[in-house]
Amino acid sequence: MESILDEGLVCHVGFVDEGQPFVVPTTYARWGDRLVIHGSAASRMLKALAAGAPACVTVTLLDGLVLARSTFHHSMNYRSVVVLGRAIEITEPEEKRRALDAIVEHVAPGRVAGVRAPTEVEMRATRVVALALDEASAKVRTGPPKDDEADYALPVWAGELPLRLQPLEPLADPRLAAGLAPPPHVTGWRRGRG
Amino acid sequence: MESILDEGLVCHVGFVDEGQPFVVPTTYARWGDRLVIHGSAASRMLKALAAGAPACVTVTLLDGLVLARSTFHHSMNYRSVVVLGRAIEITEPEEKRRALDAIVEHVAPGRVAGVRAPTEVEMRATRVVALALDEASAKVRTGPPKDDEADYALPVWAGELPLRLQPLEPLADPRLAAGLAPPPHVTGWRRGRG
Repeated sequence: MESILDEGLVCHVGFVDEGQPFVVPTTYARWGDRLVIHGSAASRMLKALAAGAPACVTVTLLDGLVLARSTFHHSMNYRSVVVLGRAIEITEPEEKRRALDAIVEHVAPGRVAGVRAPTEVEMRATRVVALALDEASAKVRTGPPKDDEADYALPVWAGELPLRLQPLEPLADPRLAAGLAPPPHVTGWRRGRG
Repeated sequence: MESILDEGLVCHVGFVDEGQPFVVPTTYARWGDRLVIHGSAASRMLKALAAGAPACVTVTLLDGLVLARSTFHHSMNYRSVVVLGRAIEITEPEEKRRALDAIVEHVAPGRVAGVRAPTEVEMRATRVVALALDEASAKVRTGPPKDDEADYALPVWAGELPLRLQPLEPLADPRLAAGLAPPPHVTGWRRGRG
């Protein structure tokens, strides 16, 4: 479960507002036995989570298309984690700062050391919540299609088309100061099996 | 909005059961002005959706990491669509069959013509629901980081690391009949900018 959460870049956060469910994509980090999420202090999602509303956070890694011999047995290979619970807001400044660092490090390991730390104003503009991983479950599908026995005789190509999230060449900011090359944590960025 | 839905492979479906939100990843298809979702007739999610429970379906395409000069301005480039509404079950056999075909075609265009169609038993074991795209919104972030003016002078590499979901070599089913090569819809499978 930890390896799935550590490989993912985006989670989908579910919460309810007046009976209507919402599903919002956002970055996150696994931080020990908690999952931390951040955003604007004005965000409806973060207000709901900070208020202790029941939440569901799902991380999904798509590994491939499963191409079967029948419509019915088509599937996907994937790994996913679903976390249920009520989040708690992190307000203590030093813990909050470390949680924000954890999110940047989760996305781009090695990044935090070189960048400007948050100011007091930025800290106030940001809300951070944590969700314990106590109530979490993982689902994984791997391997070839599981066709009906009779269908194996059909003259249909079947198998898996593996998919990977892969980095392309880094694009330098147009305003980048002269002489700055992308550092190893950018040029060497890889994720999971990518 | 349609181009985002057409490029995505997995959606995250939000629904509420006794006050608890759930977020479940699943395949889908945009089918004209509706989004269709299928699964086991026994699935809790599909039962809730078929019963007309308020739902939220989110499709997210991750395009890149936005690496800024400060922790605060780190971000992601992405395209997402959020659809709200109440689904309607598709029960008319011919419409249901076409909806199931649409889901396979969405994932692997060109696939349906060659595979075995659903049997009566498979049709009964499958539930299909459709959600109108009436109440839908898209969000898109592109481009380089937006740093604080003073931070542009920092000696920090900044820019975007583009990410793409790319296919690897197809893996033939170990039980594949001799002499079957992967067809063009497999060897030529591409998605969006990938």
